[in-house]
Amino acid sequence: MIKSYMNYDFLKNEIKGKLVEIDKIIENYINENNSTHKKYLKKTSLKNGKKARPILLFLLSDLFDIKHNELNKIASSLELLHISSLVHDDIIDKTNYRRGKKTFSSVFGNDVSLLWGDFLFLTALKLLNTIKIPELTNAMLDSSLKMVKGQILELENKGNLKINKDTYYSIIENKTASLFNFIGEVLIILNKDLVSKKNEILEFTNNIGLLFQIIDDVLDIYSDRTGKDKFNDFKENKITLPYIFLLKKIKKEEYFKIKDEEELLSLFNKYKIKDEVYIEIENIYQQALSFLNPFKGRREYKALIKYIDFIRRRKS
Amino acid sequence: MIKSYMNYDFLKNEIKGKLVEIDKIIENYINENNSTHKKYLKKTSLKNGKKARPILLFLLSDLFDIKHNELNKIASSLELLHISSLVHDDIIDKTNYRRGKKTFSSVFGNDVSLLWGDFLFLTALKLLNTIKIPELTNAMLDSSLKMVKGQILELENKGNLKINKDTYYSIIENKTASLFNFIGEVLIILNKDLVSKKNEILEFTNNIGLLFQIIDDVLDIYSDRTGKDKFNDFKENKITLPYIFLLKKIKKEEYFKIKDEEELLSLFNKYKIKDEVYIEIENIYQQALSFLNPFKGRREYKALIKYIDFIRRRKS
Repeated sequence: MIKSYMNYDFLKNEIKGKLVEIDKIIENYINENNSTHKKYLKKTSLKNGKKARPILLFLLSDLFDIKHNELNKIASSLELLHISSLVHDDIIDKTNYRRGKKTFSSVFGNDVSLLWGDFLFLTALKLLNTIKIPELTNAMLDSSLKMVKGQILELENKGNLKINKDTYYSIIENKTASLFNFIGEVLIILNKDLVSKKNEILEFTNNIGLLFQIIDDVLDIYSDRTGKDKFNDFKENKITLPYIFLLKKIKKEEYFKIKDEEELLSLFNKYKIKDEVYIEIENIYQQALSFLNPFKGRREYKALIKYIDFIRRRKS
Repeated sequence: MIKSYMNYDFLKNEIKGKLVEIDKIIENYINENNSTHKKYLKKTSLKNGKKARPILLFLLSDLFDIKHNELNKIASSLELLHISSLVHDDIIDKTNYRRGKKTFSSVFGNDVSLLWGDFLFLTALKLLNTIKIPELTNAMLDSSLKMVKGQILELENKGNLKINKDTYYSIIENKTASLFNFIGEVLIILNKDLVSKKNEILEFTNNIGLLFQIIDDVLDIYSDRTGKDKFNDFKENKITLPYIFLLKKIKKEEYFKIKDEEELLSLFNKYKIKDEVYIEIENIYQQALSFLNPFKGRREYKALIKYIDFIRRRKS
């Protein structure tokens, strides 16, 4: 029945069902009769995402016994917000392929993509705002603002070979972890008893976001995935964590002389950069685990551990 | 004292003061310490706009005796939303000059402009959402969605020489009148007694928006203004109302052969296109007047008539 999420064996069927539900909520909410918009919707990867954010929202809501009627709507608007951000991302990063499909911008060009990204983005906010809890809408606006600030910071640092780890973490905390932190904010808004645990919860969601992005940056170099462009960061002059480590081993001149992806990969291998990155990943992973420790024995504990493993070990 | 709005002699000093206040509210609300954002803010035309939308909100609020504490905040967020839409517009239209200054995109390029437009846009929504009236936030999201739909429709019709008046009106109703209609929605949200007059109020704000955009399209051809590019619509293949009328007089082949702006202008003059456009303008103007008729004798009536004249007779 719930075919596409069958491999998420760590999720109970109830959550798998909710993930399927999300696609329907988004589709029904956009529900466009306009033929142009229909054409655009068809070329937007609305479905088949990993749903990393909705899953985390459901798992943590269960962990903290939050039974809000509108959780599914919140998860849907978060997923749609994420999708819309990809439309703008792909313009800036000049990405051609994502999830095995041509990106929206590579099909329709940048002008339409800019507007279509705006359209989806507004729709996500509108869907959330139907819940009529101004704090929720505000939290999503705050997270989105952080996301944009992170993207601006990233853009400013394109080609900056002197970028340090702090700036890298500042970029990914803003551009990626912000939407995971929205989940933490949602929990606190829906269950005021959690206010006292606010810092810990947000540190946890933040760590998941960091983990997610660092893995993404690793996959851009090492993965065998076929659904996405590879070495896009190199082409776009984005100095991510693996590159920061590599640039400590080789001279700038040597970096500029790299002639192809093969040579680049052999340098990464020669200096065992992956190992260094995985020390960072392990560190963040351990922090995330220590947040979950007090919940040992709970059913949700196991699922959350497996969720983090899924984030950490994913291949695409 | 209130130097920049001195020429608005139809406004009472109280409203002029509020217009000055708007610049401060926006500036304080954004209040960015980040040096990059400061640099971007400096190159964003936050001030010195005509403030056509805030003025209308204030005049209509007075007319309907709406004394809401947060009117100024609503007006500020609307003005900021308008400003942010110009940042994205200028990317799509490849505009180089606006309000006598180089546009943001011509200084910083399209990628930064895309993100900066998003940033301002989110800030506008966040400012409005601080009022914590979900209906207001929803109304702004709706208007913004309409705006984007209008821009998409416009993009789809670039270079479409067969475009008819209905499609043109549909474009400008969505892309421009939507933000004026937001004002109508605000009035009804803040004063429930106005619900029975909803259609008339929205027809009025819609007419003001149409008037505003048609004049804009006329100015792109006929004005002597120096603050903006001229003949941008022609360069960008936007078939606006004057072009729709011109294309009824000349053959497509003749249109494609137009070699420069001088020849284009002489054709507009030869076929007295301006007169035809002004018949449309007069028609909309009369509809707007008839809405105001029942309020004759009120102080605000006179101000609103002068406001419409200001929209209609503006030179830039």
